[in-house]
Amino acid sequence: MKVAIIGATGYGGAELVRILRNHSHVSIHSIHASSSYGDLLADSYPHMQTLVDNQIEAVDVDKLVKEVDLVFTATPSGVARDLAPQFIEQGVKVIDISGDFRIKNREQYKEWYGMEAAEATLLNEAVYGLTEWLEEDISDARIIANPGCFPTGILLGLLPLVKADLVEENSIIVDAKTGVSGAGKGLSAATHFSETNDNFKIYKVNEHQHTPEIEQGLQRINSNIEAITFTPHLAPMTRGIMATMYMTAKQPTTKEEVLEVFQERYKDDFFVRVRPLGQFPTTKEVSGSNFCDIGVTYDERTNRITVVSVIDNLVKGASGQAVQNMNKLMGIDEKTGIDFMPVFP
Amino acid sequence: MKVAIIGATGYGGAELVRILRNHSHVSIHSIHASSSYGDLLADSYPHMQTLVDNQIEAVDVDKLVKEVDLVFTATPSGVARDLAPQFIEQGVKVIDISGDFRIKNREQYKEWYGMEAAEATLLNEAVYGLTEWLEEDISDARIIANPGCFPTGILLGLLPLVKADLVEENSIIVDAKTGVSGAGKGLSAATHFSETNDNFKIYKVNEHQHTPEIEQGLQRINSNIEAITFTPHLAPMTRGIMATMYMTAKQPTTKEEVLEVFQERYKDDFFVRVRPLGQFPTTKEVSGSNFCDIGVTYDERTNRITVVSVIDNLVKGASGQAVQNMNKLMGIDEKTGIDFMPVFP
Amino acid sequence: MKVAIIGATGYGGAELVRILRNHSHVSIHSIHASSSYGDLLADSYPHMQTLVDNQIEAVDVDKLVKEVDLVFTATPSGVARDLAPQFIEQGVKVIDISGDFRIKNREQYKEWYGMEAAEATLLNEAVYGLTEWLEEDISDARIIANPGCFPTGILLGLLPLVKADLVEENSIIVDAKTGVSGAGKGLSAATHFSETNDNFKIYKVNEHQHTPEIEQGLQRINSNIEAITFTPHLAPMTRGIMATMYMTAKQPTTKEEVLEVFQERYKDDFFVRVRPLGQFPTTKEVSGSNFCDIGVTYDERTNRITVVSVIDNLVKGASGQAVQNMNKLMGIDEKTGIDFMPVFP
Amino acid sequence: MKVAIIGATGYGGAELVRILRNHSHVSIHSIHASSSYGDLLADSYPHMQTLVDNQIEAVDVDKLVKEVDLVFTATPSGVARDLAPQFIEQGVKVIDISGDFRIKNREQYKEWYGMEAAEATLLNEAVYGLTEWLEEDISDARIIANPGCFPTGILLGLLPLVKADLVEENSIIVDAKTGVSGAGKGLSAATHFSETNDNFKIYKVNEHQHTPEIEQGLQRINSNIEAITFTPHLAPMTRGIMATMYMTAKQPTTKEEVLEVFQERYKDDFFVRVRPLGQFPTTKEVSGSNFCDIGVTYDERTNRITVVSVIDNLVKGASGQAVQNMNKLMGIDEKTGIDFMPVFP
Repeated sequence: MKVAIIGATGYGGAELVRILRNHSHVSIHSIHASSSYGDLLADSYPHMQTLVDNQIEAVDVDKLVKEVDLVFTATPSGVARDLAPQFIEQGVKVIDISGDFRIKNREQYKEWYGMEAAEATLLNEAVYGLTEWLEEDISDARIIANPGCFPTGILLGLLPLVKADLVEENSIIVDAKTGVSGAGKGLSAATHFSETNDNFKIYKVNEHQHTPEIEQGLQRINSNIEAITFTPHLAPMTRGIMATMYMTAKQPTTKEEVLEVFQERYKDDFFVRVRPLGQFPTTKEVSGSNFCDIGVTYDERTNRITVVSVIDNLVKGASGQAVQNMNKLMGIDEKTGIDFMPVFP
Repeated sequence: MKVAIIGATGYGGAELVRILRNHSHVSIHSIHASSSYGDLLADSYPHMQTLVDNQIEAVDVDKLVKEVDLVFTATPSGVARDLAPQFIEQGVKVIDISGDFRIKNREQYKEWYGMEAAEATLLNEAVYGLTEWLEEDISDARIIANPGCFPTGILLGLLPLVKADLVEENSIIVDAKTGVSGAGKGLSAATHFSETNDNFKIYKVNEHQHTPEIEQGLQRINSNIEAITFTPHLAPMTRGIMATMYMTAKQPTTKEEVLEVFQERYKDDFFVRVRPLGQFPTTKEVSGSNFCDIGVTYDERTNRITVVSVIDNLVKGASGQAVQNMNKLMGIDEKTGIDFMPVFP
Repeated sequence: MKVAIIGATGYGGAELVRILRNHSHVSIHSIHASSSYGDLLADSYPHMQTLVDNQIEAVDVDKLVKEVDLVFTATPSGVARDLAPQFIEQGVKVIDISGDFRIKNREQYKEWYGMEAAEATLLNEAVYGLTEWLEEDISDARIIANPGCFPTGILLGLLPLVKADLVEENSIIVDAKTGVSGAGKGLSAATHFSETNDNFKIYKVNEHQHTPEIEQGLQRINSNIEAITFTPHLAPMTRGIMATMYMTAKQPTTKEEVLEVFQERYKDDFFVRVRPLGQFPTTKEVSGSNFCDIGVTYDERTNRITVVSVIDNLVKGASGQAVQNMNKLMGIDEKTGIDFMPVFP
Repeated sequence: MKVAIIGATGYGGAELVRILRNHSHVSIHSIHASSSYGDLLADSYPHMQTLVDNQIEAVDVDKLVKEVDLVFTATPSGVARDLAPQFIEQGVKVIDISGDFRIKNREQYKEWYGMEAAEATLLNEAVYGLTEWLEEDISDARIIANPGCFPTGILLGLLPLVKADLVEENSIIVDAKTGVSGAGKGLSAATHFSETNDNFKIYKVNEHQHTPEIEQGLQRINSNIEAITFTPHLAPMTRGIMATMYMTAKQPTTKEEVLEVFQERYKDDFFVRVRPLGQFPTTKEVSGSNFCDIGVTYDERTNRITVVSVIDNLVKGASGQAVQNMNKLMGIDEKTGIDFMPVFP
C-alpha cells in the first residue's frame, strides 16, 4: 500500500516516517508540507540522513489520488478540514492526526478551536479512532479522526470504569502531565530550554481544547456526564504523558474490583497493559512504543478511585495509533509495524 | 545568637548552612551528624570549600546546652523525638525540620510514620510553624515543628478558602509534583539518574505521610473536613514543588471572588505572592528563595476552584521557613537573612 | 538460532533483550544473572511486562551448551574471563560485552582493570569486534570481544585518519562526554539525580580503563602511536556519547581532504554516517539506533583536525554492535534486527 | 551610588538586578531596553514580582548622566560601542558586559563579530575586567570591558601556567561545555527544549567569537602564543560552564608542581578556589555564585597538563564579575553584594 504524509515536518509527521519505514505492508510514496518544497526531509531532521531520501513536495490532490491509497494528515487545525474531503471523494482514505474531525458538535469545535468546523456530514461519517474502543469493523471507513494525545491516555483510563458504571458522573478530575514535544517543533517562549528545563509549569487551566473531546468520549458511554475538570501541565522532559485521574465511586468498592474491571476489559488488547495492584507505570516505561500502561487504586477514606495512565504522546498519542488504525483499516494484525518494545532507560 | 545544626549532612541541613552563613543575627556554632565525625562538612559538599570550615561533630547535649541558644534538627524520623526534650528542658530552643512534632495525634503518627510518637505533652506544646498562619506571638515557644515541604505549599494554598468557608468540605483533591531533592541525599532506585531523567513518576498514592499533617492543618480551621486525596509525583527536576489543588465551591462563585480572598489574606505576607488572574506560577520562579507563589481560578462548568502553589522544597518547604520561624522566635524582621530573589533561569 | 544472555539485568543486557526480541533469525533461549533466580526479568524492568516472560536463571554451563548456539556475556569484569572458555570449548560461541577479552596485553589489563587477565591463548584468539574494521571473515570465530562504548565511537572517528597517515602520532587528545546510563544500573553518588541533573562532571581524568583499548586499536594501524590523552565527562542526559577528537595534521591539509578520507572509508558502511562539511551530529540524532555519525573539520590557524563522533552508548556502544557482530558471525546481512531509525526527538 | 542597567531584559541584565537588589552600596536607578517601554520588568520576569517595581525605559543619555554614577550595558554587539562614549564623556562610568570593548585589535573584532569596532582610543582606554588579573588600581577607570563568559573561566585556568612559563606555546586546546542560558533569552532552534533536552551538541567549531579574546588574554602574558583551539559545546543544563584545557608541558613536571602554581597565584583571591589533587569541580558546585573553581592534573605518559575550570556563566561569567569590577572601581571590598554560597543541589 502506498501512503502520503501531509505535514511531515512536524514531530507527528516525522514519527510517522520513523514507524512506516519499517512497516512490512506499506511504502511511503511522498511527503508534503506547506513550505521548503524541494528540500530533503533529512535537511530538517539530520537523524534521517541516508535513511529517508524523500523531498518535501507541495500537495497536489489530483496527482496524489491517482498514486496513493491512503493519506495521513498531520497538519495544523483547519487544514485537514479542507483537504480531507477532496481525497475521500476520489477514493483515497484519510487518517487525520489533527483535531479537525474529532468533535462531532460543530459549535463546540468553533468554541474551543476558534475556527469553523468541517462539514456536518463528514464529521458524522468520520470514525473516532481510539482503537481499543472501536465499536465495529472499520475496513470500509473513509476517514479516521485519530484521537488527541491527552484524550487517548485519558479515555483509555476512564472508559472501563464509566462503562462498568462505577463512577459518579460529575466527579471526574484529570490532572495531566506532558513532555514538551507535545508543543511541537515550533519555537515559543514556553518551550525555551533555559526556562523549561528543571522547571514545572501549568497551562490552559480549564481551557485546553482537548476537554470537549474527552467529554464527548465519555458521553458516548454515559450521557449523564456533563463536564470534567482537565488540567494539563508541562514537565521538563521530551516525550510522555501521565494522566492522574480522580473520581468518586458510585458505591464503596475495592481495589480488587477496580482492577478487575480493567483486566477484563483489556485482556485482548495488546497495547494496553494493566499493572498489578500497588504498581504504577512511569512515562519512560512506554517511551518510543505504542503502549498505554495503566495502574489503579481505590481509597476507602475518601471513596475515590485513582487511575494512572501513561503513553508516549508521539506514538500511542499520535502516529503509532494512526498506524494501528491503518492496520485495522487494512484488515491486518493491529501490531504490524508497531510491535516494538519501549526504549528504556 | 549561636545555633547548632543537627543533621547537617542532608540537603535540608546543608541549605540551612547556606542561609545562615549570611544571616546578620546568627552564627553557626557547630554542626552534627550521626557519622563521619571529624570530617569537614565541605568534604561532603565541595561547594562549601573555603566558606564553611566546620567539622562534623557528635551530639553532646550537655556541652551544647551550655554553648548554644537554639538547635535545628534536620534528622530522620524518631531522632528529634528523643533529642528535643533534652534541649528544651535545659533552656535551649529547638526548631525541628523532621516530622516528629507535627502530628498532634499520637496514634496517627504511629500509623503513618511506623514508629512511636513523641510525648503527648511535648506534642501539645510544640508550635506548628506554618509561619503565615501562626496564631500568636511565639517568642516564648520552646519548640517549633517546622512543616513538611508538601504541607507548606498545600496549606498556604488551601487555608484562605477554607477559612472563608468557600469550599465543600470533603471535595479537596491535591495533585502534587516535587523535584527529586525532596527524596534527600540517600541513594535509592527511585533517584537513579538514568531512570528518573526524562521520566515522570507517581508514588505513595494515598499513602504519603504528609496526608495527616495536611488534614490536621485544615481541620484546625474547619473540623468538618474529614479526609483529602493527596497524590505526590516525582518530576525530573532537582528543586521545587507545585501543588495543583481542586475543590468544589460551596456555592457558585467567581474567579474574582476567589482571588480576592487570597489577596486579602496575604496582603501583609512578604513571602506569599498571589498572582493576577490568568497567570500561574512555575516552580522555577521561586527557586532558591523563600517565596510561595499562588495562582487561582474558578470554572463555572464544573463549579470547581483550582489553586496552584509553588515553593522551593528546600527553602520555604524546609530550611528557609525554619529560619523565618527562628526570626519570629527572636522577634526580629521575618525577612532577615532570607530576603533573596529567586535564581532564574 | 538460540542464544542465552548472561548478565541480563544490567542496561546492556536489557538492551540486548529489546533488540533480539524483534530479530528474525534468533530467539532468546534464556536469561541469566547472579541473583534473583526465579524472578521475571520484567520484575526489574516493568517496561518489559507482557513482552518478555523469561525468568532469571543461574548459569548452568553444561545445560546451556546443549541448548544454545551462542552466549552473550554482559557481565562485570572478571566474569566472562572465567565463563567464556567453558562455552567455547564445548562449541558454543561467545560474544563478550565486558572488557575481559579486549586487551591483548595481560599486564596492561591488570594495570587498568585491577584484576588478572584471561588466558593468553584465548586473548589471542578473541576477535576485537569493531565491526566496520574487522579485517576478515569472522564466521569461524569462537569468541568476539565487543568493544567498549568509548572506544567504539572514538576508534571509528580516529582510524580513517590514522590509516591515511594524516595524523601526527602523539598529538591525539580525546574529550568525551557520556550520558549517565554508561555508569549502569547500580546506584552510586555519581548517578544520584539531584546532584547529576543540571550539572556537568569530569571523571577518571587520565585514568579511564578504556584508554589502553583505544591505544591498542590505534597501534594496530600505526605502531608509532604511544599514548593518547583521553578524558571522559558525565553529561546530564541518559544515553549518548559524543567524542570530540583533536589532532595535529602531519602536513597542512584541507577540510575537504579530511572529509574525503572519511567518505571513502565508510562509503559501504551502513552504520557509519559521515556528515557534510559544516554540519556536526548531536547525540540525540543517533539515540536508540546503531548508527555512529561523524563530523569533521580542519583549522588552518592551528593546523589541527577536529573529528566529532556520536553513538548511543547502549546500542552501537554495546548491545547493538554485539548483534551486528552476531550477524557477521552468522553470515547474514549485518543490518538484520538493528535497522531502526533513531528515536528523535 | 546610583546605577542604570541598559539591556535589563536579557538574562545578564536580569541577573544584575538580582545581585544589585541586595548590594549595600548601590541602588538601581532605572532599567532600560530597546522596546516594551513602560512595561514592568516583572512582566517579563514573574519571579521579580513584588521585588522589582522598575518600568522599562528608553535610554535618554542626557537625563541619565545627571542622575546616575555608573551604567551597566548588557546589550547586543554594537550597542555599547555607540552608547558608552556618550556616557563617559559626561563623567558617568560604564561597565560593558557585551563584547564591544574587549578586543583591542579593531580588524580582529570586525572579522569575528562581523561589524565595525569601537573607536581605537576608547578601546585602548578600556580596562579588561578579568578581576583577578587586573594589573593596577582601576578606581580612575572610565570604562570596563567585562570579559566574556568563556574567556573568564578559561583565562583563569590558563594564565597561571602561562605566567609560570610551564606551557608549550602553541599546544593549548580548550574544550568547553556551556549551559543553554549562555545563548540568551531569544528563541532559536538551538534552544528548543525538545531538541536540546537529553541531547549534547557541538557548535561554532573553530569559529566562536570568544577565540580572539582568549588569545589576546594569553598573549598579554606570553606573546609567543599564536593561536589556540577552542571548541564550545552545548550541554543540556541551564547554567554553568566547564572548560577542560589541555596543554603540553614545556618540560616534564609533576601534579604537585602544577597545583602549587595555582595555589600560589590565587591564594589571596576569594572567588577562585583551587581544588586539591584528585578532585575536580562540577558546574553545579558554583551555580548561582561568583566562584571559579579549578582542578588540575598532569599525565606523565603524554607530558600533558589538564586544567578544569567551572563558573556560573551568568554570575562570574557576566553579571557577578561586573559587580566585582564595580566594587573595585568604587574601592570597596570586592566581595560586597556577591558573597553568597553556591546553590546546591
